[in-house]
Amino acid sequence: MNVETVLESRGGAVVIGDAHPFVVIGERINPTGRGKLTEEITAGDMTTVQADAVAQVEAGAKILDVNAGVPGFDEAEMLSNVVKAVHAVVDAALCIDSSTPEALEAAIPPAEGKVLINSVTAEDESLERLLPLVRRFGAAVIGMANDESGISMDPQVRLAAARKIVEAAADHGIPREDVLIDPLAMPIGAAPDAAIAMFETIRLIREELGVNLSCGASNVSFGLPDRPGIDATFLSMAIFAGMNCAIANPLHLPVRKAILAADVLLGRDPYAAAWIAEHRARLAAADTG
Amino acid sequence: MNVETVLESRGGAVVIGDAHPFVVIGERINPTGRGKLTEEITAGDMTTVQADAVAQVEAGAKILDVNAGVPGFDEAEMLSNVVKAVHAVVDAALCIDSSTPEALEAAIPPAEGKVLINSVTAEDESLERLLPLVRRFGAAVIGMANDESGISMDPQVRLAAARKIVEAAADHGIPREDVLIDPLAMPIGAAPDAAIAMFETIRLIREELGVNLSCGASNVSFGLPDRPGIDATFLSMAIFAGMNCAIANPLHLPVRKAILAADVLLGRDPYAAAWIAEHRARLAAADTG
Repeated sequence: MNVETVLESRGGAVVIGDAHPFVVIGERINPTGRGKLTEEITAGDMTTVQADAVAQVEAGAKILDVNAGVPGFDEAEMLSNVVKAVHAVVDAALCIDSSTPEALEAAIPPAEGKVLINSVTAEDESLERLLPLVRRFGAAVIGMANDESGISMDPQVRLAAARKIVEAAADHGIPREDVLIDPLAMPIGAAPDAAIAMFETIRLIREELGVNLSCGASNVSFGLPDRPGIDATFLSMAIFAGMNCAIANPLHLPVRKAILAADVLLGRDPYAAAWIAEHRARLAAADTG
Repeated sequence: MNVETVLESRGGAVVIGDAHPFVVIGERINPTGRGKLTEEITAGDMTTVQADAVAQVEAGAKILDVNAGVPGFDEAEMLSNVVKAVHAVVDAALCIDSSTPEALEAAIPPAEGKVLINSVTAEDESLERLLPLVRRFGAAVIGMANDESGISMDPQVRLAAARKIVEAAADHGIPREDVLIDPLAMPIGAAPDAAIAMFETIRLIREELGVNLSCGASNVSFGLPDRPGIDATFLSMAIFAGMNCAIANPLHLPVRKAILAADVLLGRDPYAAAWIAEHRARLAAADTG
């Protein structure tokens, strides 16, 4: 049995681990590639941020990723405002998505409970700059399994990067259960072995390091048509391989269903109670909507 | 690398194995629980049989399961008629679904090429009655991993049953590559560990026996709402665990997509050529239809 990672929110504890249902980190609050959201955030308008927060929590996200990085704008101020806007409408735990110390220092204090920081890499500079903040704020952190040499397709190289992160975290007083490793989901359309490399990395990291795993699930389908169809099967396989949570879009119904079905099939939703409840809620919504 | 199982049809060889795309055995031509089909088959009307054959092949089935078992009717005559009716409209390879020697003896001669027989169990009576026919007709066979004691939830017991089938087949001169083992998909709504037991059985059988695997995929979702949603994730996981083919319904779009996405993710559809082609065909059909 793996360790358990516990985040805290106003809504209660969120536990990530093998004995618990899969945890979705909603990916939508991120201006990258979203013109309307970028315009709103830079103008201080939180309409879409708050709508995305509510919709993702209703679709089952227990954690919300919040990103406010727009080149040329003050990330610290914007990220802090986004955090407050999200807290005003939902109780979910937060995943603060920035690698800028100033932005984290501004955005974590207004965040309630124990947050997840997204992310460090195994690069020395990243570790030395961000791990002291993880420790200071009592946060958990996502570690990307790559270092200065870039992203390797060799699972052993990714394992070495992951090990370096876990060891550096320990040196900073951050326990193993507060480090989630991202085994790196890369676009399958560009590299036919991208998913296989990630699944093998999951296996190695579980076996050698025993930490929990998260990934940016939507990366795998980049550039392909019908991305939710690829993402759903990718998540099914990754969860089977041992991934405990993922940054994903729960508003895509195939993705949401794959995650709920995975819980049923792996014995984390006994007698399919959550699956059946969600199905009934969808029917009821279709009736009244 | 596993062995390769090769069936033959008028349309060419169908190869089941790790280096090949996942093979769907279309499940629809089966009167069990289908009142209209039962009425038609018993009256010698092949309208629905032929429509189901065409639709499943168009949806990607490389093999069609044909079953004509209706209590009180002559299975041998009906099964033979169904085989001829299917061959009249499609080139797919056939999976003759009967455990009655007389029905197999009547239905296999009109079947073209090399067929799959569905199925034997590890019961002595089943093996002694059916394996001589498998040998005589040069067929391949599906072996269900259970014996006289019923269906065990213990993967080791299922492995022992599978081993007995593979060894009995060898005694009858049937090579290992012509035996597919069914690791037994049981309803998850009744037993929360049903899927885990099957996945572990797949692992053991691949490791110990090296034969290919098939299963009746739709069983897992029996009794639950939104069955294709469960089936799609179940198939994704089972394929990842090493299943090479399955009796399934390719007309359920989530199931079809899961299988195609699995090929993409496991490197069996390089650069997603088949995924993209299918997506375009769906768009074209939506445009004109």
